[in-house]
Amino acid sequence: MRIGIIGTGMVGKALAAKLVEVGHDIMIGTRDVSQTLSSPNKDVAGNPAFGEWQKQNPKVKLGTFEQAAKHGEVIISATSGAASLEPLKLAGTANLKGKILVDISNPLDFSKGMPPTLSVCNTDSLGEQIQRTFPDARVVKTLNTTNASMMVNPRQLAGGDHTLFVSGNDASAKAAVTGYLKEWFGWEDVIDMGDISTARGTEMLLPIWVRLYGVLKTPVFNFKIVR
Amino acid sequence: MRIGIIGTGMVGKALAAKLVEVGHDIMIGTRDVSQTLSSPNKDVAGNPAFGEWQKQNPKVKLGTFEQAAKHGEVIISATSGAASLEPLKLAGTANLKGKILVDISNPLDFSKGMPPTLSVCNTDSLGEQIQRTFPDARVVKTLNTTNASMMVNPRQLAGGDHTLFVSGNDASAKAAVTGYLKEWFGWEDVIDMGDISTARGTEMLLPIWVRLYGVLKTPVFNFKIVR
Repeated sequence: MRIGIIGTGMVGKALAAKLVEVGHDIMIGTRDVSQTLSSPNKDVAGNPAFGEWQKQNPKVKLGTFEQAAKHGEVIISATSGAASLEPLKLAGTANLKGKILVDISNPLDFSKGMPPTLSVCNTDSLGEQIQRTFPDARVVKTLNTTNASMMVNPRQLAGGDHTLFVSGNDASAKAAVTGYLKEWFGWEDVIDMGDISTARGTEMLLPIWVRLYGVLKTPVFNFKIVR
Repeated sequence: MRIGIIGTGMVGKALAAKLVEVGHDIMIGTRDVSQTLSSPNKDVAGNPAFGEWQKQNPKVKLGTFEQAAKHGEVIISATSGAASLEPLKLAGTANLKGKILVDISNPLDFSKGMPPTLSVCNTDSLGEQIQRTFPDARVVKTLNTTNASMMVNPRQLAGGDHTLFVSGNDASAKAAVTGYLKEWFGWEDVIDMGDISTARGTEMLLPIWVRLYGVLKTPVFNFKIVR
């Protein structure tokens, strides 16, 4: 499948590497291709700069936000959540129309110090903002409740016996994404929370996630809904 | 142990019934004792009116907020979270001084329809508000991430293999409460999240809790932090 990933950070790269490994045709979108390739900066997780990383992952294509959105039958929004809307606008409303748009980001606001707060919550969510801004895209919120490494390899922890959530207005898009989560990454327990407004619930898991990360000293943990 | 419970609702009654069962000396505090005893209203869970309930639970004493706070070596705040501060003020600052004050409520705001939002979150929490208002009380936030039935009987689900959290500024108070949670109710996995500001994280679990209740059609579920 052709998949466009919006965002060159730790999460976009983790997803891209895994998705080419399982046989998909991936293009990552960025604001400025030549700048992304020439930047010497490592990402926040200490991974190599993008140009270096791409040499290790030569099957992953790099294009503009617009090219990646055109490339993808499915689009994954993997930019920093507090600034996800603008890259999607640059990707182009027409290039998202009718497509599944998987929103995996959280609206984390680091401007007030650590741990981060949320720039939107309680009465709205990033998932809803994206769906409102792109009403013809089929937005599915998921994967935002784990870190990048766990997203693509849930079986690294307790054999995968923990939970992920999907939220979205389009039932067939959610069903398709639930299938992708299993097929691509191995997620077995995925709860359909309801319409996109239920993204408020999953995004509001982040304040405890970041504190658990502090307490447990590792991102290798996850929520399981025992029932 | 003498324990004062502030609040005559479903949660206060569930805690009181369990705590007398395990041998403690319990007084529930209310605003107006005679009105509480004569009210014909069932609680939100459909339990009998308080007067009727007390006949079935004759060891549970009823007093004013102030009497219950004086009675308790440990105080449990179990009123509706959006209005927890005023009953505690009526209980009397001097009667809370130096005591463990267990805050189990959530600041749920039902005024905007269902599901409820939070009246405080993200940059503050009910736990912090209580600690700020009563700086000489040793506030421990816990039990707020499950319903009343699960609070007092975690082993009803998966043999108790799921997680509870404690937040508070006083390490010895948290350690004592962690012991009580095990001894009184059977909680085995209790994570110390850190100071009282970490109550932001656990209170912000409520938006997903209420939606999971809608999806799962039962309150018999809980979060487990798999790690």
